[in-house]
Amino acid sequence: MKTTRIGVVAPSCPIDGDVVDRVTARAQALYGESAPEIRFHPQCFLTHGHFAGDDEARAKALVEYASDPEIDAIWFARGGYGSCRVVETTLPRLGDAARAKQWLGYSDAGSLLGALYAAGFANVAHGPMPADIRRDGGEAAVDRALDWLVERSTDALEPNAARERAVAFNMTILSNLIGTPFQPDLTDHVLMLEEVSEHHYRIDRTLFHITSDPAIRRVAGIRLGRVSDVIENDRSFGYEVDEIVAHWCAVSGIPLLGTANIGHDVENRVVPFGGA
Amino acid sequence: MKTTRIGVVAPSCPIDGDVVDRVTARAQALYGESAPEIRFHPQCFLTHGHFAGDDEARAKALVEYASDPEIDAIWFARGGYGSCRVVETTLPRLGDAARAKQWLGYSDAGSLLGALYAAGFANVAHGPMPADIRRDGGEAAVDRALDWLVERSTDALEPNAARERAVAFNMTILSNLIGTPFQPDLTDHVLMLEEVSEHHYRIDRTLFHITSDPAIRRVAGIRLGRVSDVIENDRSFGYEVDEIVAHWCAVSGIPLLGTANIGHDVENRVVPFGGA
Repeated sequence: MKTTRIGVVAPSCPIDGDVVDRVTARAQALYGESAPEIRFHPQCFLTHGHFAGDDEARAKALVEYASDPEIDAIWFARGGYGSCRVVETTLPRLGDAARAKQWLGYSDAGSLLGALYAAGFANVAHGPMPADIRRDGGEAAVDRALDWLVERSTDALEPNAARERAVAFNMTILSNLIGTPFQPDLTDHVLMLEEVSEHHYRIDRTLFHITSDPAIRRVAGIRLGRVSDVIENDRSFGYEVDEIVAHWCAVSGIPLLGTANIGHDVENRVVPFGGA
Repeated sequence: MKTTRIGVVAPSCPIDGDVVDRVTARAQALYGESAPEIRFHPQCFLTHGHFAGDDEARAKALVEYASDPEIDAIWFARGGYGSCRVVETTLPRLGDAARAKQWLGYSDAGSLLGALYAAGFANVAHGPMPADIRRDGGEAAVDRALDWLVERSTDALEPNAARERAVAFNMTILSNLIGTPFQPDLTDHVLMLEEVSEHHYRIDRTLFHITSDPAIRRVAGIRLGRVSDVIENDRSFGYEVDEIVAHWCAVSGIPLLGTANIGHDVENRVVPFGGA
């Protein structure tokens, strides 16, 4: 199976036109004449306060592309905040065409990825997004995402995810799915977690929450991705991030399996939910 | 019933000695010779990184005072962060003497208050804490807490809580209890929510989480307390806090009942969990 048409929608915040040009150029550079069409929905460029259009505009664009049988994959444009606002309204509108597609994104998009996986969607993956092109060295991240979307290249995979039944989430995003109908059943999954721009005490509290949930305690183990740009607090926390994760794994009895090559950076690799 | 001895412990961060002096002076001023003894556990002054002593020191002090039949009430010293770290280890160690006591606090202490209420403790209340004495005009907050602890004065109550079956939580703290064994059953309760020092988008995400939980959707309604010191974001959110709350109430079908006189300030009033 080869992906020939990728649809990009922005369920959180908008992107600029330069992302389109630069990502399209990467596809050309990688695949030449057989490059996939990357169709950026006009909704990606709307602005409504914090968001790429109001809730209904974002939901409508998502449902439109997800329902289009000519589109093989849905690629979320970027993170930020806002995906959770369209979860409850879009899920009931997604049918078989949506289930057949590959879905890719991370960070805030995890609200939708998690909900899709909870709803039984088989082709959901954590991985780089178009807006990653703006990072220093971001071409490598976008190339990796395209490799996965177009050819399911195993080179794009997080190494452990190539052989483990894994999922990957931003810690805060997963925390905010717990107890909702959108929380996926992660029994026997390896749970890869990453975080960005939070204080130590918030990371600690989020891990209290995640690891205290009886459903999460049924995971096979946790792997720690990168936790970057930790925010300085007015008082030192006293524990580093790896100590915090080890603490909550010990309290909860969840095995700490090691690290995962994921995070808010250009090294971030693809983790297909439920196994490659 | 008259409270004669109040035990103060600090399950999150430490307090300074001036809080002891100033709070003790308020009790003397209010009650003279019949003033309650306010016993500050030495643990309140420990420091261990972010915390008032390590997890075991904080848990041990809490269990010690909660188990002491000579102490009528447990008053949490202050907020900050750390109560959730001692919930799972202290709950199994709390017996009948602990259940008989009045418990008072708010903010981070909500992790413990919520867990105690979930465990069937009958005398759990949201309200001012000793460290509030350091706020400008904080004497009024401490006097109100003492009025409740010593005499169950109805003057101390949040007006709606005097006639409604209510609970009160910091939004973020309640969010981090959802799905855990420490989440209380709030069916048919009025849920009062307050927040401090968060961005609009975080408040929005937290309310997505709270109102998306099917158990929370069984509340009688939500009342909005004060949301103070909202942090400026690099992009304007586009909705004010009252619009955010109205949005999630509309989505979830939870009635928005109005405001609540609670918050991180000296006006913060007492809300006995489950009714006055």
